[in-house]
Amino acid sequence: MDAYIIPALDQHAGEKCENYIDTLTKPVGSLGKLEEIAIQIAEMQGQAMPRLEKLGILVFAADHGITEEGISAFPQEVTRQMVTNMAQGGAAINVFGRQQQAEFSLVDVGVMGEKFEVPVKNRKIRQGTRNFANEEAMTAEEVKRAVKTGYEEAILLFDKGVDCLAVGEVGIGNTTTSSAVVAAVTGLDPTELVGYGTGISSEQHLHKIKVVKNALAFHQTDSKDGYDILRKVGGLELAAMAGAMLAAASNRIPIILDGFISTAAACVAERLGKGTVNYMLLGHQSMEPGHQRAYEYLGKEPIMSLNMRLGEGTGAAVAFAVIQSAMRMINEMATFESAGVSGKNE
Amino acid sequence: MDAYIIPALDQHAGEKCENYIDTLTKPVGSLGKLEEIAIQIAEMQGQAMPRLEKLGILVFAADHGITEEGISAFPQEVTRQMVTNMAQGGAAINVFGRQQQAEFSLVDVGVMGEKFEVPVKNRKIRQGTRNFANEEAMTAEEVKRAVKTGYEEAILLFDKGVDCLAVGEVGIGNTTTSSAVVAAVTGLDPTELVGYGTGISSEQHLHKIKVVKNALAFHQTDSKDGYDILRKVGGLELAAMAGAMLAAASNRIPIILDGFISTAAACVAERLGKGTVNYMLLGHQSMEPGHQRAYEYLGKEPIMSLNMRLGEGTGAAVAFAVIQSAMRMINEMATFESAGVSGKNE
Repeated sequence: MDAYIIPALDQHAGEKCENYIDTLTKPVGSLGKLEEIAIQIAEMQGQAMPRLEKLGILVFAADHGITEEGISAFPQEVTRQMVTNMAQGGAAINVFGRQQQAEFSLVDVGVMGEKFEVPVKNRKIRQGTRNFANEEAMTAEEVKRAVKTGYEEAILLFDKGVDCLAVGEVGIGNTTTSSAVVAAVTGLDPTELVGYGTGISSEQHLHKIKVVKNALAFHQTDSKDGYDILRKVGGLELAAMAGAMLAAASNRIPIILDGFISTAAACVAERLGKGTVNYMLLGHQSMEPGHQRAYEYLGKEPIMSLNMRLGEGTGAAVAFAVIQSAMRMINEMATFESAGVSGKNE
Repeated sequence: MDAYIIPALDQHAGEKCENYIDTLTKPVGSLGKLEEIAIQIAEMQGQAMPRLEKLGILVFAADHGITEEGISAFPQEVTRQMVTNMAQGGAAINVFGRQQQAEFSLVDVGVMGEKFEVPVKNRKIRQGTRNFANEEAMTAEEVKRAVKTGYEEAILLFDKGVDCLAVGEVGIGNTTTSSAVVAAVTGLDPTELVGYGTGISSEQHLHKIKVVKNALAFHQTDSKDGYDILRKVGGLELAAMAGAMLAAASNRIPIILDGFISTAAACVAERLGKGTVNYMLLGHQSMEPGHQRAYEYLGKEPIMSLNMRLGEGTGAAVAFAVIQSAMRMINEMATFESAGVSGKNE
């Protein structure tokens, strides 16, 4: 399989950034997380004065054979309908994307049915995954193609000047897939990971846990092998999301993680390219219970906690404004010296 | 004294807004706090489809006689230097204000020394408050003028199209003043309210608590009378901030609270005009310990928690982007019906 080489963080740039922040006209440390974000992006970009010019939002859409097991509140055809809505600019991610003046790209990697008549990029690998309750979700070849597609689509955005990436998704059933993927990577019990998704009953919730547990027992995934996990219990959009994250990290471009599905893709991406996780910021804490488990596994802390649980990349897009505040801080604030402001009392 | 009449919230508009949100193309409740913010602003504006066009940032600057007691990490002259920096666009609040395309106004209501040569609005009431360790901080007339000044300056911003107000401040010593004010309004023990401000030592911290306790014992403030509290232990900028909040609430304009000083002013504003608190959103949770006590007293929850403790209105300005996300949600998202998306499985 391909091995992705992820560059190391530039600790020296981070230290220079940190020292510079302490010269700005404010009490030391008083901008809290904004200071941490600036230092992290300095390390990623390898420059002491980090900048971000343009957010890219890359949404992958696909269906999930596992919906046959009755694990979602919405019928499978909603994936296609939501993609159509998103192509027409009416979904939440469109709205927040416009707010952030983001470059937006919507890619079909596996929605049921033929290609869309509305403007959606057609890179369909197959019409939905197979039902991983009974069989492997994808072939090895399909996984490889999905990861590569994600990688390529991210590069296309970078070529348009995107220097910060949010990776979103649409796919009825994908919290179930994500629960299986996170359990497979981390070894956590699905009981701790499976949530209510778009709003199932408590009875359906118990069923959903059982479906995930049975699938993991059936497949015996290898926790060290991201390709194995994706093939057996993954999703086409999850594979593409992981590929896009690999492209970002390979190019020292910060990734803003969203909720549970995005963080599940991040867990896999780290298996495909060690160090990818170093290029990730976590936009928000989702209400989906598995999210916290997954991001703690990755060693991340959310920028915000807005009780959101929508997916699509929405939490990442909303958080971009805060990340931009951090960039503004470092690039626009005066220093004590330049402003002629006295230091602390001795 | 003047009595400010604050209009009641429009519950009907809030309910209509809430019902409409549930028709948008997303699982019910999945945008969490963004949905709550939209409903709150609908109630404030009295319209089911709330909108915000322009943030106003109104910063009041003043000095505090209490600095004679050695309660701050920075010397008093830093107020004047920070105002100069802010007038030249180099302070954190300028930076975040530009990001939010805010209308910015900086008003001197009581900085030591003559009027500024840099462009700062001169509405100086006196050069700093008196040291409230020994005497009343202001006369009744000075308090009244400061509140009125704040009110008038806010109205000037509203006349320029501002429909959402963040009220910030600069004033060395004002966390001490705010601790006294919050203790006087709420009856809380200063030990729970006094923090490290811009970064004092633990020895200074104990001293600062003692200064506030002694002052409250000396003055015997009336917890129901905002004017009494401001006169005895208040600050010129705190009084002006309260006045600006009264102007906003009187005109059904949402106020974004910042950190401890802003929330102290909010406590007083509620005493001067009952119901002012209904027009307040809390931008963030400050690291200053008294902040949480004060906002819990007001019944508020922070939108974000970024470990900030800078003041100036910075937390409010950063949070405005999230509030705008809520406005975008309600005004731009498609409904299930308009987008032709199926509902939940029955």
